[in-house]
Amino acid sequence: MKLNPLAQSLNQTLEGSVAYRLLSDLGKRMFFPRGVAAQSMEAKEKAHRFDATVGIANVERGKPIILEEIHRWVPELSPAEIVSYAPTPGDPELRKLWQQEILRKNPDVPPDRISLPMVTSGLTGALSQVADLFVNPHDHVLVSDFFWGNYRLLFEGRREARLVTYPLFTEEGSLDLEALERTIRDIPAKKAVLVLNFPNNPTGYTPTVDEARAMAGLLARCAEEKDLLVVCDDAYFGLFYEEGIYPHSLFNLLATAHPNLLAVKVDGPTKELYVWGFRIGFLTFGSPVLTAGQFDALNQKLAGSLRATVSNSNRLAQSLLKRALTSAHTPSELAKWADLLKARYRKTRQILSRMGDDVPLVPQPFNSGYFMCFKTRGIDAEALRQALLEKGIGTISLGRDVLRVTFASIPEEHLEELFSEIFETARSLA
Amino acid sequence: MKLNPLAQSLNQTLEGSVAYRLLSDLGKRMFFPRGVAAQSMEAKEKAHRFDATVGIANVERGKPIILEEIHRWVPELSPAEIVSYAPTPGDPELRKLWQQEILRKNPDVPPDRISLPMVTSGLTGALSQVADLFVNPHDHVLVSDFFWGNYRLLFEGRREARLVTYPLFTEEGSLDLEALERTIRDIPAKKAVLVLNFPNNPTGYTPTVDEARAMAGLLARCAEEKDLLVVCDDAYFGLFYEEGIYPHSLFNLLATAHPNLLAVKVDGPTKELYVWGFRIGFLTFGSPVLTAGQFDALNQKLAGSLRATVSNSNRLAQSLLKRALTSAHTPSELAKWADLLKARYRKTRQILSRMGDDVPLVPQPFNSGYFMCFKTRGIDAEALRQALLEKGIGTISLGRDVLRVTFASIPEEHLEELFSEIFETARSLA
Repeated sequence: MKLNPLAQSLNQTLEGSVAYRLLSDLGKRMFFPRGVAAQSMEAKEKAHRFDATVGIANVERGKPIILEEIHRWVPELSPAEIVSYAPTPGDPELRKLWQQEILRKNPDVPPDRISLPMVTSGLTGALSQVADLFVNPHDHVLVSDFFWGNYRLLFEGRREARLVTYPLFTEEGSLDLEALERTIRDIPAKKAVLVLNFPNNPTGYTPTVDEARAMAGLLARCAEEKDLLVVCDDAYFGLFYEEGIYPHSLFNLLATAHPNLLAVKVDGPTKELYVWGFRIGFLTFGSPVLTAGQFDALNQKLAGSLRATVSNSNRLAQSLLKRALTSAHTPSELAKWADLLKARYRKTRQILSRMGDDVPLVPQPFNSGYFMCFKTRGIDAEALRQALLEKGIGTISLGRDVLRVTFASIPEEHLEELFSEIFETARSLA
Repeated sequence: MKLNPLAQSLNQTLEGSVAYRLLSDLGKRMFFPRGVAAQSMEAKEKAHRFDATVGIANVERGKPIILEEIHRWVPELSPAEIVSYAPTPGDPELRKLWQQEILRKNPDVPPDRISLPMVTSGLTGALSQVADLFVNPHDHVLVSDFFWGNYRLLFEGRREARLVTYPLFTEEGSLDLEALERTIRDIPAKKAVLVLNFPNNPTGYTPTVDEARAMAGLLARCAEEKDLLVVCDDAYFGLFYEEGIYPHSLFNLLATAHPNLLAVKVDGPTKELYVWGFRIGFLTFGSPVLTAGQFDALNQKLAGSLRATVSNSNRLAQSLLKRALTSAHTPSELAKWADLLKARYRKTRQILSRMGDDVPLVPQPFNSGYFMCFKTRGIDAEALRQALLEKGIGTISLGRDVLRVTFASIPEEHLEELFSEIFETARSLA
C-alpha cells in the first residue's frame, strides 16, 4: 500500500536516526491526519467568532451541554473540565506538568533530550502503542523471567513478536546482568526491544545504584552492535523501601546512553498518585541525538495511532490530575501514604525473617513497590493458590513455581495472619 | 505461531458460525488469559479474608487509598467508585443497564439475540477493537462516500484493509441502496465488512422507515452469497428531527437479519448523554443463530484484546454513568437538551430554505444529529474553510468539495450570522 504523504514526510524527518530504524511497518504508516481533529485544533486558536467544527454540542462557545445528573457529583469543576474532549495528545498543561515531574525525578536527563510526554489510556495503553509503533512480527522482545503476564498477550498475542526471557536474578539474589548482556548479544538480528520494569512486577525488586549504572553501561555497549528500543515501564516508580536503591528511573541514565538506543519511558499517576481506574498514562521518548523535530515526528505518529485506537483519553481524570499535581497539599499526602506502605513492607520483612526452614517457599529479592514473590520448592504454585482461596485468601500464581503476594494491599495488623496461613498451607502441600 | 490453548478453545466454540469465519488472524489468536486479572476476579468472589491479588494499595479491604486532593472534587462518591480499577469488560451493572437501554430503543431485538455489551474506551475504542478482531490486511471494508475520516486511519492505516466507498445518496437525495447492493456483490471475496453510521457523520442523515427496512432486506439478500460483518456506528443515536425517520438503530433489524450476517452495535453515552470526554463506549454483538456460549466466546476474545490494549476503561466515568442512567431526572433533562438542538436544526432549515441560487453551495440531505454538509459547486472546500477561518469562523472541509457545519454547537441566535458569512464567503470565492 502506498504511504500517505504525511506519513512519508514524518519518515523523512526521522530517516537516518535509530527511531526510524526501530519503527514497525505500522509505525512507518502512521501519521496524524489533517482531518476533523486537526481542523478543530486550528479552529480553537483562530475561530474567535463561531466554532462549528467539533462534534460537541455546546450551550454556547466553550460551554458544553452537561446533564445535571453528572455535574452534581463534581460540582466545583466546569462542564468543560468534566465532559469536553481532551486533545488526542492529552491536555497540554498536564503534559507540561508531567514533563516537569519526570525532570524532577530524573535530574541527570537534560530537558532537551526528552520529548513532551503524550497522554495514553493508562500504562497498558502506552505499552500497547509502543508495541504497535515499534514491534513487527518476529521481532525479539526481551523481558526478564519475572514479568507482567500482559506483556505476553501484548507483544506476542497481538504483535506476533518473539518474547525472549533472561534470568532476572543470579543465584545470589542480585541482578543477573551477564545473562542480560548475553541474551541481547545472542539475538540474531540488528534490532532488539527490551522492557525494563522496576520496581518490578511481580517481584518488587529495584536495582541498587551500582546495578543501575552497570545496566546502563552494558546497554550502551550492546547498542554498539544493535539498535535498541529500551522501554522503561515505571508503573510502580517511587515506592522505594531500602537504602542504596537507585532512586530514579533507569530512563535517567538511558535517555542519553547511546545514539543507537531509543529510550521510552512509560509511566503515570496510576500507582504514583493512587488513581488506578483513571486510565491515564504517559509515553516519553529520550535520546542523546534526536532533534526536536524528530521527537515531534514520533509524537505525531503516536498521535495518529492514538486517534485510530482511542481518539483521546478521559478528560475528567486529566482535569483532576492537574489539580492534584498543582496542589500544595499533595506532597505531604503522598508522604503519608508512602509511610503506610513502607510500614507494611517492614512488617512483611520482619515476618519473613522468622519464616521456618520447613516452609517450602523461597522469598525472592524485593525492596520496593506493591509485591513480593515466593518461589515454591517442590509444590505447585497454582495448587497453593487454590488451597489458599479455599481458606478465603487471594494470591496470584505465576507459572508453576511463583506465588505473588500484594503486601501493599493488606493492613499491617493482618500481615502476620496472612503469611502464617500462606506458610501453613504451603507446608500442608509439601 | 502456535495458538494458545485458551484461544483454541474459544475458536472451537465459534467454529461453524459466521463469527468464526469473520474473525481476523489476530481475532483467532485472542483470548482472556488466566493471569493476574482473571485470578483477581476469582479472589473478588472467594477471598473473603484477605485479597492480596490485585495491584491496588488498599487502606483496608475494598477501600483504596485516595488523595484528598482528588476526592474533594467528587466528595459524595466512595474512593472505590473513583479510583479503583473497573473490570476489563466494564462495570457489570453498567453493562446490564446499557443492555436494557439497547433493548428499550430497539424493541424488535429479542433479548437473547444480543450479547452483553462490553465497555470500550470510547466509540473509537470499540471500532478499533472491531478492526483488530475482524479485519485482516486486504479485507474489504465498505463505507459510504460520506464517512468519518478516522475510518480510513483505523481500517486502512492500521489494519491495511481496502476501504471501498459507495455513494450514500442518489441524485434525488434518497439513500442509494442500489449502489450499496452492487458494491457489496462486486466485492471479489466471500467476506465483507460494512460500516453503517446513522445519524451519519458528516451529513446528519438518518434513513427513513422505508429505507431502513429496504436496507436490512438487501443486506439479508447479500448475506446469501457472502459473510457480512455489519457495524452499526450509532454514535449520534437519538437526535432525530423529522417525522418518518427510522426511530431505532439499524441493529434493530440487522441483529436477526441472516445467519451469515454478524451485526455489531457500536454506541455509547458520548453523544447520547453529552459526556464526550468520558471515553466510554459499548460493543454489542447481534445474530439470529449464535448461541449464548458463542456470544460469550466473542466477548472473551474482546476482553483479551482490551486487556492487551487498554487493560480497562475509566472507573469514575462508569460510576457517574450508572448514577445518571438510574436517575429519575435524566429523561426530562435529555428531553430539554434535545429540544434545544432541535430548535437549532429548525433554524438552520429555515435559513437554508432562503439561501440564494447564487451561493455555490448545495446542502446535502440531513434530518438528525449534529451536522449538515454542503457540496461546493466549483469552489474548493478547503479554500472556503481557510477563508472562513480568516473571518474567525471554524468549519470542517472534507475532500475537495464538502464543507461540514456543526449547527448543534451554535446558539440559535447566532445561526443566521454564521450561515450568512458562509454564503457570502462562498460567493466571494466563486
